[in-house]
Amino acid sequence: MTLIRPQYEEFSESLPLDCGRELGHYRICYETYGRLANDRSNALLLCHGMSTDAHAMGRRTSDEPKPGWWDSAVGPGKMLDTNKYFIICSNVIGGAGGSTGPGSVELATGWPYGMRFPIVTIPDMVRAQTRLIDRLGIDRLHGVIGGCFGGHQAMQWGAAHGERVGKVVAITVRSAASAYTLALWEIVRASIRNDPAWRGGNYYGHARPVVGTGLATAISLLQWMDSDFMQARYGRDRVRGPGPQYDFEPEYSIQRMMARVIEADHATVDANTFLYLTRAADYFDLAAGQANLIDGLRRAGGDYLLVSYERDARYPVAETERLAEALRLVGRSVKHLVLSSALSHGAYLYDIAGLDREVSAFLRHE
Amino acid sequence: MTLIRPQYEEFSESLPLDCGRELGHYRICYETYGRLANDRSNALLLCHGMSTDAHAMGRRTSDEPKPGWWDSAVGPGKMLDTNKYFIICSNVIGGAGGSTGPGSVELATGWPYGMRFPIVTIPDMVRAQTRLIDRLGIDRLHGVIGGCFGGHQAMQWGAAHGERVGKVVAITVRSAASAYTLALWEIVRASIRNDPAWRGGNYYGHARPVVGTGLATAISLLQWMDSDFMQARYGRDRVRGPGPQYDFEPEYSIQRMMARVIEADHATVDANTFLYLTRAADYFDLAAGQANLIDGLRRAGGDYLLVSYERDARYPVAETERLAEALRLVGRSVKHLVLSSALSHGAYLYDIAGLDREVSAFLRHE
Repeated sequence: MTLIRPQYEEFSESLPLDCGRELGHYRICYETYGRLANDRSNALLLCHGMSTDAHAMGRRTSDEPKPGWWDSAVGPGKMLDTNKYFIICSNVIGGAGGSTGPGSVELATGWPYGMRFPIVTIPDMVRAQTRLIDRLGIDRLHGVIGGCFGGHQAMQWGAAHGERVGKVVAITVRSAASAYTLALWEIVRASIRNDPAWRGGNYYGHARPVVGTGLATAISLLQWMDSDFMQARYGRDRVRGPGPQYDFEPEYSIQRMMARVIEADHATVDANTFLYLTRAADYFDLAAGQANLIDGLRRAGGDYLLVSYERDARYPVAETERLAEALRLVGRSVKHLVLSSALSHGAYLYDIAGLDREVSAFLRHE
Repeated sequence: MTLIRPQYEEFSESLPLDCGRELGHYRICYETYGRLANDRSNALLLCHGMSTDAHAMGRRTSDEPKPGWWDSAVGPGKMLDTNKYFIICSNVIGGAGGSTGPGSVELATGWPYGMRFPIVTIPDMVRAQTRLIDRLGIDRLHGVIGGCFGGHQAMQWGAAHGERVGKVVAITVRSAASAYTLALWEIVRASIRNDPAWRGGNYYGHARPVVGTGLATAISLLQWMDSDFMQARYGRDRVRGPGPQYDFEPEYSIQRMMARVIEADHATVDANTFLYLTRAADYFDLAAGQANLIDGLRRAGGDYLLVSYERDARYPVAETERLAEALRLVGRSVKHLVLSSALSHGAYLYDIAGLDREVSAFLRHE
């Protein structure tokens, strides 16, 4: 087994942020898979989701229990074929996976930033990614791809840096966070802040706020799961005997699953990063500062493959089609692929049949 | 303004519970509206929901900020016409609205029960209601009506005490809690238990666990609201100026609304009662202990009006129809009314146009 090694780039030129502050010295952690062609034309940037990081494929250590978050899709002969493409996955700024974020030491104080870390937006994260691409000597990406939070980064690439990207694959996205999502993230953040172990964000060197983080993860997961799938997969199956136990311990299969999510020490989910990334998701709006979405997309470049799933309530097919129409109106080539999966919103991670062939073909097509 | 007075009945004959324990001396708080006819034939039992109580109509004090929870539907000339019917609304056992529940003093110890209160089921709650009806000298109810948690009580009346009820109106119900609902209540209970102020359920005489209760209420509310309605009503409207504020304070209208729910001291929502009522909802299953739903309904009596709302994901139309079909198979007369409202699941409380005429007609029909 070839182990994957995380790589790091340090940037000493400060990064101006949308909030008006700047990141001085900062670091990006990334992984790469495959080989960069001599003409540097085969690079794909893979954008990670809310609770993942740069570790998309393979294992970093031989005893790592699970491989990277999109191992099903990235590798030799897979949807993102490492025999063909040079694939880069970088942890976003604000993240907790090795890039500069709220857990990083603030050079001015020598202490972790905590909540003194500046608000970072998806446009900020993408600008940081452009510098990583610069550093790797890549002028133009063959493609950028991501789902949900990663899909919004992909859209931002196309909208703001379209001259540097050939193909944009954005899975389960909309042009801006919906009211429902805004409400969800407010609740998720409250669940973290309510954990006394969060200590106003200064939990570094103390026990991590695992209770609040577990609850936040469970609340997110509930939104993300399809109720029909849950019914078919779990139903009212019991785990502690055939009849009611008449107590408050998890008694149904789905409740034990949720209790495990709540109680788990989610080592890859950092409380402060969860706060910062959800806030970035709140602010995401391709029409921000413009009269409307069309105006927000006027500078867009690249060809688009948008993917939505039937019955994904947070990212409904009709919203994706609205985005596709807006892209077409500004002259972009767009394919909107509607898939059906029992997992709906989660399908792109765990049920890529149907997705893989279409994405491969889209990336291959000249 | 005629003020509504809560009434109380004390029961010294112990109530055997499904869990094998029993409630010794217990109390039921209730309100009544209208007059009981001389032949006692015009009584309607109104069953309350998860976060409400016996106070369904009017005001108890002249300065009460809001009237009872179904004031839009109960009163002279309204859907539940107090000129025609004698309407009883009683707080369930396990509740916090004056009936015996986890906040009541356990006679054996002189202390509030807290988590020593026995698990009570919806069948237990309904058995307690039958004793209240006995006490009021009513052999047979003209009807029983409720929505969601109250609708499940109404179904239980029809299924287990059908000889004592003429008409059952059950709004947004299914035959048993779904996997999605089981997951939701597990998360809600964790959010309460995680509040240090909950103190293992022994918060009586201390500050109430308002943080956990607020979070639990917000999580429930998010499930209950319709995402399209939220988008239309709130969208991405901002409350702190035209552009991003780049901090973590609630910035969007929907976020301020949710933050207020989270931070409110929900005086009518008691933490332990929330735990007990959600557990009762978990256990609800009309097929419990039977081979299937049909067998669970073999003893059912009464005529049925089942009401569902398009786009209510937790109580989908198809599930209600499945329940209607099962009732028809055991020989009951059933009307399944499918309504459409921007509020979907919440419509029966706040948007009763369409519901009112149908319910009135159903109750009137001999």
